[in-house]
Amino acid sequence: MMNQTFEFPDQQTIEAAHNRIRPHIHRTPVLTSKFFNQLTGGEVFFKCENFQKTGSFKIRGACNAVFSLDNEQALKGVATHSSGNHAQALSLAANLRGIKAYVVMPMDSSKAKIAAVREYGGKITFCKPTLQSREEMLQVVIARTKATEIHPYNNLRIIAGQATAAIELLQDVHDLDIILAPVGGGGLLSGTALAVTYFSPFTRIIAAEPEEANDAYLSLKAGHIVPAKKPVTVADGLRTALGTFTFPIIQKHVENIVTVREDQIIEAMKLVWERMKIVVEPSAAVTVAALVNEKIDVKGKRAGVIICGGNVDLDHLPWKTI
Amino acid sequence: MMNQTFEFPDQQTIEAAHNRIRPHIHRTPVLTSKFFNQLTGGEVFFKCENFQKTGSFKIRGACNAVFSLDNEQALKGVATHSSGNHAQALSLAANLRGIKAYVVMPMDSSKAKIAAVREYGGKITFCKPTLQSREEMLQVVIARTKATEIHPYNNLRIIAGQATAAIELLQDVHDLDIILAPVGGGGLLSGTALAVTYFSPFTRIIAAEPEEANDAYLSLKAGHIVPAKKPVTVADGLRTALGTFTFPIIQKHVENIVTVREDQIIEAMKLVWERMKIVVEPSAAVTVAALVNEKIDVKGKRAGVIICGGNVDLDHLPWKTI
Repeated sequence: MMNQTFEFPDQQTIEAAHNRIRPHIHRTPVLTSKFFNQLTGGEVFFKCENFQKTGSFKIRGACNAVFSLDNEQALKGVATHSSGNHAQALSLAANLRGIKAYVVMPMDSSKAKIAAVREYGGKITFCKPTLQSREEMLQVVIARTKATEIHPYNNLRIIAGQATAAIELLQDVHDLDIILAPVGGGGLLSGTALAVTYFSPFTRIIAAEPEEANDAYLSLKAGHIVPAKKPVTVADGLRTALGTFTFPIIQKHVENIVTVREDQIIEAMKLVWERMKIVVEPSAAVTVAALVNEKIDVKGKRAGVIICGGNVDLDHLPWKTI
Repeated sequence: MMNQTFEFPDQQTIEAAHNRIRPHIHRTPVLTSKFFNQLTGGEVFFKCENFQKTGSFKIRGACNAVFSLDNEQALKGVATHSSGNHAQALSLAANLRGIKAYVVMPMDSSKAKIAAVREYGGKITFCKPTLQSREEMLQVVIARTKATEIHPYNNLRIIAGQATAAIELLQDVHDLDIILAPVGGGGLLSGTALAVTYFSPFTRIIAAEPEEANDAYLSLKAGHIVPAKKPVTVADGLRTALGTFTFPIIQKHVENIVTVREDQIIEAMKLVWERMKIVVEPSAAVTVAALVNEKIDVKGKRAGVIICGGNVDLDHLPWKTI
């Protein structure tokens, strides 16, 4: 067990985060599906963050971080390196507060992602597509602008913000036996774990992860953070390794992490599209794959599933089409 | 103007249909999208029948027809020829009443469609893939079973059932300036037109149709039913021609029919998936295409759009993927 060297965000902090961001985000719906209930033998409640602003839960943490800054800090803007949902979320959150977001993106980012960040008002600096180049360029941008760095997940305000999806799910659906979330860097999972611990302490917390990016699973087993080794999963939101803030929270409050194969993720994603008529991204299908393939048994139980996002490049789907 | 040779379903009939089917169907949500509001300059309200049982509005008419039968008739079952959403809807409606549905399907129907009809309990008889063969085989089935034929759209009980989607939309959203529906055989459009006429008489009723299947547009212009000539539109639900019941209702109550190109339909479909994160079928994208391409001006107006369904073969999408 890693020594806990910081205070976990407490119940009041998480409630304050929810109050802070509520005017800026959508209250996303909780959907149910007879098909998935029959398939799993349980009652499954999907918290649909794919309908959230910017298409993922990431706006929750980003808004909490941006709106927590004092005016002096805020005026200098915020900065991050990201090619994914966090880049869009931070850009919109900054835009909503009327401040600047500086986003370092690898030069090989897709046109769609670049366009989305620009649409939300983010100021992009391109870098080489390596982690080292991203981090170095971010430091250059911060030195120039004095902007506050907002890490995509290893940041306590981000974690407190991500916790609010579970708060809403627990408000809308009582007596959940289990809550499921995917794990990448662990922002969503650690936030979810805290919310459940404070607001529904008898609900079990289980995470799902791609087999091809099982660093969180290995970390939990090893008792220390195991770095991710270039994971090649279709679940592009889950390729990152745990952080020094997210890991201890997960270690303390998450019961188990289960892993699923790539074909199971793709099949689950397609099944959700077909049966629920909603667009979910591969990262969101990881928990569903765990349910469908009985990695988690919910028979006779009430299970909440956090559908983390719906950002998919429709021109590049992970299954073959004719 | 064609002579009206039958009584249109009146307000009481449509209300009775709604009461009859309400226990068996979903009350589908009405969604809004900032993106589409900004794009059109109006306020657009999407009545999401893609979330309806069987994935389309067709269950409304099918349930009304099936639950209107007296016990003696019902015991002999219902029959239709269809390869599309009506086949699934009639199968489920019959199943819900505990009676048989005989469905004549062309032998080249997709495996997915055959499986869906079977899943809902429909009994399939295959025929050659021609309209003549479908009609002849249906007569054979009816002669053998004495089942009641339920036409997919040219049936007053079907029309009264389809009217209930608009009733719910008008209950949920007040003061709509315009209501938009797609038109194929005209079941949804004629039902919508009646509901609007009775419950919101100042709302304008406009339909959208693929340019490649513009028989309804031509019929309205000509003042008589113009047959469809083998339309090759991606909007597979809209390939049928108007019927003797649907046409006079449309002629009397629909202000205008606008047409859209195939590329506009596909682009609109993709835009809805991308921006609203919901799966809609090509037929449902026809009205959206009309809005996006300014075939209908809703600037400063409140517009209701009936999203007719979400049944798409995910292995055969109308755009190229890599």
